[in-house]
Amino acid sequence: MSQSVPIKFRPDDIAVEVKKGTSVLEAAISAGVYIDSICGGRGKCGKCKVILKKGEPEIDSKKLLSEDEIAKDYVLACETHINDDTEILVPEESRLGLHQILKKSEIVAIEKLNPLVRKQYLELEPPTLEDNISDLSRLERALEEREICDTCVSLPLLKNVSRVLRRKDWKVTLTFADAAKDSTVVDIESGDTTRKLYGVAVDIGTTTVVVELVDLNTGEVIDCEADYNKQVMFGEDVLTRILYATEEEKGLPKLKKAIVSTINYLIGVLAKRNGLRRRDIQLMTAAGNTTMTHLFLGLDPAQIRIDPYIPVANNLPFVRTKETGIKINRSGFVYCLPGRSSYVGGDITADILATGLHKKEELAMLIDVGTNGEVVLGNKDWMVSCSCSAGPAFEGGEVDFGIRATTGAIERVTLTPDLEVKYSTIGNVKPKGICGSGLIDLLAELFMHGAMNKAGQLEETGSKRIRGGEEGKEFVVVWSEETNIKKDMVISEVDIQNIMRTKAAVFAACSVLLKSTNHKFSDIQKLYVAGGFGNYLDVRKSVYLGLLPDVDPDLYSFIGNGAVAGSRLVLLDRTKLEEAKEIVKKMTYIELSVNTTFYDEFTSALFFPHTNLGLFPTAKELLV
Amino acid sequence: MSQSVPIKFRPDDIAVEVKKGTSVLEAAISAGVYIDSICGGRGKCGKCKVILKKGEPEIDSKKLLSEDEIAKDYVLACETHINDDTEILVPEESRLGLHQILKKSEIVAIEKLNPLVRKQYLELEPPTLEDNISDLSRLERALEEREICDTCVSLPLLKNVSRVLRRKDWKVTLTFADAAKDSTVVDIESGDTTRKLYGVAVDIGTTTVVVELVDLNTGEVIDCEADYNKQVMFGEDVLTRILYATEEEKGLPKLKKAIVSTINYLIGVLAKRNGLRRRDIQLMTAAGNTTMTHLFLGLDPAQIRIDPYIPVANNLPFVRTKETGIKINRSGFVYCLPGRSSYVGGDITADILATGLHKKEELAMLIDVGTNGEVVLGNKDWMVSCSCSAGPAFEGGEVDFGIRATTGAIERVTLTPDLEVKYSTIGNVKPKGICGSGLIDLLAELFMHGAMNKAGQLEETGSKRIRGGEEGKEFVVVWSEETNIKKDMVISEVDIQNIMRTKAAVFAACSVLLKSTNHKFSDIQKLYVAGGFGNYLDVRKSVYLGLLPDVDPDLYSFIGNGAVAGSRLVLLDRTKLEEAKEIVKKMTYIELSVNTTFYDEFTSALFFPHTNLGLFPTAKELLV
Repeated sequence: MSQSVPIKFRPDDIAVEVKKGTSVLEAAISAGVYIDSICGGRGKCGKCKVILKKGEPEIDSKKLLSEDEIAKDYVLACETHINDDTEILVPEESRLGLHQILKKSEIVAIEKLNPLVRKQYLELEPPTLEDNISDLSRLERALEEREICDTCVSLPLLKNVSRVLRRKDWKVTLTFADAAKDSTVVDIESGDTTRKLYGVAVDIGTTTVVVELVDLNTGEVIDCEADYNKQVMFGEDVLTRILYATEEEKGLPKLKKAIVSTINYLIGVLAKRNGLRRRDIQLMTAAGNTTMTHLFLGLDPAQIRIDPYIPVANNLPFVRTKETGIKINRSGFVYCLPGRSSYVGGDITADILATGLHKKEELAMLIDVGTNGEVVLGNKDWMVSCSCSAGPAFEGGEVDFGIRATTGAIERVTLTPDLEVKYSTIGNVKPKGICGSGLIDLLAELFMHGAMNKAGQLEETGSKRIRGGEEGKEFVVVWSEETNIKKDMVISEVDIQNIMRTKAAVFAACSVLLKSTNHKFSDIQKLYVAGGFGNYLDVRKSVYLGLLPDVDPDLYSFIGNGAVAGSRLVLLDRTKLEEAKEIVKKMTYIELSVNTTFYDEFTSALFFPHTNLGLFPTAKELLV
Repeated sequence: MSQSVPIKFRPDDIAVEVKKGTSVLEAAISAGVYIDSICGGRGKCGKCKVILKKGEPEIDSKKLLSEDEIAKDYVLACETHINDDTEILVPEESRLGLHQILKKSEIVAIEKLNPLVRKQYLELEPPTLEDNISDLSRLERALEEREICDTCVSLPLLKNVSRVLRRKDWKVTLTFADAAKDSTVVDIESGDTTRKLYGVAVDIGTTTVVVELVDLNTGEVIDCEADYNKQVMFGEDVLTRILYATEEEKGLPKLKKAIVSTINYLIGVLAKRNGLRRRDIQLMTAAGNTTMTHLFLGLDPAQIRIDPYIPVANNLPFVRTKETGIKINRSGFVYCLPGRSSYVGGDITADILATGLHKKEELAMLIDVGTNGEVVLGNKDWMVSCSCSAGPAFEGGEVDFGIRATTGAIERVTLTPDLEVKYSTIGNVKPKGICGSGLIDLLAELFMHGAMNKAGQLEETGSKRIRGGEEGKEFVVVWSEETNIKKDMVISEVDIQNIMRTKAAVFAACSVLLKSTNHKFSDIQKLYVAGGFGNYLDVRKSVYLGLLPDVDPDLYSFIGNGAVAGSRLVLLDRTKLEEAKEIVKKMTYIELSVNTTFYDEFTSALFFPHTNLGLFPTAKELLV
């Protein structure tokens, strides 16, 4: 048995034991610590710089390090093999990927806290025979004194107002929402409750639902929770769900109930954990793709999948929570961000809001890859958008051992030169499958090590991991005994073709937008990557596979979950509501399903990285 | 057996057989034909002029007729006794009372049909891949082309819009309501349905509910139906019902359900009879007193009966039908006319709207006597109002044999000089009891014939109808064998005291308003009598009893059911909505329960007609 040695990674203080002689990079992968690397540990790219803090490892080469770096104890993680108790500091610049992505530094900041709901504390004069106006008029008079006019109190609130006013000696707190042109009263409570003002910002994803609990008095996100959209039991992608909604008996109500109960569950968890009543949450803003929004509100999605692809509505009204089934304040509101078309929905509007690209001079491209891939190109003056059916290849579908980014999913992969596999799983447990970011790592590594050719075919390299399978050749990612599923986990050439089609669709969509506006990739001044997928995406490996455009990596910016960020912006600043509507109004939509350029571009992109290597100078260099 | 002879009354062509020698007046009473008479058939007032068209009656006296009248075959109905087949034309001037009252000529006319809901037929361009905006945007675009902007489509309508638009080849009809500042869409139907546009105007009376079905395309009242308010099983008057609502378990929901089901029943009858779907009725306007409005909407009425008498709201919002339980168009609205205070409600606002007194120069008084008595004084510049608890004496309560104005109720009474009773019942059936107008007739006749004194005590006249009873003296109105209840129908001195208190309260209320504004009765230029009670009220007999002010009878105007008329005005002309709000804003309310003048006036009025006979010159004259 080979000797085990301990290694600790700072600043996250994650410690593991690895076999003596293991490279720091491999150790980091098995510890789930992400260290940037393009070349896959071949000592070629010089990206995996770390600082040696303790230990006497064997260092193969320092040739890619500067003298200054060497003086500061920098080493390359792939060239450094552990001998004894070791401590490594992963510097900020090498933390691209998971950590850097999650910073969300590119989300626009709220200029002024101006939430969509607000509270007003009032001390009313008690009525007398001389001053015997109605309870409602008394409230309205006090509001008018504060120049809050044209208030609208709904019937359910009126039903209790008499008792609420008298319970704490005519001291009350009103909650208002800008749900229509007038100020609408959302709640009337006895006493001073101004301290309690909360909203939830929701990302209604096809696969995952994220709910943020936001304190609207401070603008702070006080908690966050996510879960799978319960609709997945009715189908993985939006088209399957539309079919279910339209062709199964009570299909639409069932789908509506599934997503509403998902959101309610998450809100319940957040409320309980933070000691809030559901009533204290007065507003929910949500962003989702057009199908998700339809299913959530119970709107008929049938026409979304039928030429000419017409949604019921893109601009949705404020809806009373009661009408949606959402369990927050009974008289509160739910607002779904507006979308542009059947396939560019409110989630993309939220992404744009979150990046602020609609207010900047620079030409920016926004790529949101989930089950669908949506791309936006533009600046403060114009925007074009399109959507391609990316397919679920990156979300656990169309790939035999593909799973969603859940516990047990392989999310990071590197290969050694002899094709041995180093991987890390979510939760550091035995692997159950491979999620999107793992697939990209895997294919990029196979490609870089010459085990996969441009056409996505596996090459005979002598490794026993490449073998004949049921569907042509396959690569064994994890041997049976290491898995949690008791069989060899493989990726087949059929899987690879599916992934290739997905990446080709996304890249072709980018190309179409540029061509349609007479731009080149080099004109792009900023490239935002959004979506849950983007959160864990290795941009360099994605470029290497031809999924993302090969532009200066510094232009890339990961915005994380733009849908929830955009929803939160609207919650915190009501001027963003108008901005969202303006975005939708300004943005042109290109329907790719009838776009011949798209098919040409798609076909050209059905290679790794692309038939036209001129578009991928970085990848071309590494391939040499 | 005495001989029977036929008599026919024109213009209504009502024929009866009466004993030979019967006066035309008595014949008219038994036929249910109303002929004006103040003196009760004693040949003193000269009001019961009719035209003899056929027959050879015995005519006692023509001394109160002019030569011109005699030349035109005028006779006095009380002085003319039938001998043979007779035909009588009752001229317009003698038809005061039932017929004149029901003319409603004093209800203001709609200047321009401008209903609160309206329809718009649209033929939309079908969508294409080039023109692929959402269904909602397509609708909005078509509306904007017709300069209908800022429309608001609610979620329930959005749920069906996709199918509705496609069902009849993109031809649709939208229904709009001015329910808020924006135009709110109430319905979206396939094809052209502009022909079908209906509303219901409702009088939510404490005792009786009236529903009018109105064609909003023509302004026509196409049908009307009335029934008892099912709430009467929980108490006759508003205070009893408030107690029930606040002290019984689920009291408020039970009361709400009772009135809602009453209205729904009536709407159902009207819809069925006129071949309409409930969906075709898009709007309901309603007027009721403040308690009725609270109970109808489910608002807590508790504070209405507690000093300082504060309602939850006087100005009520438009409410979606679904929220009220009213079964008309699901997305339609219910609007309750605004009231002024806990005891001057939307029914009085409706009365004022219907009279137009708030727009006229002349000083007008409005009296609405039901279970409560409300009085308004004013003109286009100012209005004062008050309310007195009239008690249910005129609506079947507080009087042993008092019943509501239903089949079998004695509604007209005259006495012969020897106190024999001539009466007519509603429906011409055997009497079950006496309703408000019958009680006034009865007491006035007793008074005029000297059988009742100023203090309301019955005098010994030698008639066997006046006798000792369980509660002091009583007058037998109908002998047992003639009734439907198998016992002598009597009015006792206790009953008379209750009626006296009611009339005193109403008259005192009139006095207070005049005094508080430094006016005299003689300043009144118009006197409107409203309410179901007013419909059948004999104004001269009411004056004689001291219930109504003794002003020139020509100044009196009966507006019939002002509550339903005012509701209908709002339905047909949306500018009336603002007028209604202006009325409420402009009108001062005087709380009588703490008004010392009121108690003085009330005490002074506890005589027939009044302690101060100077206030009742006409009555004084007749008494001589």
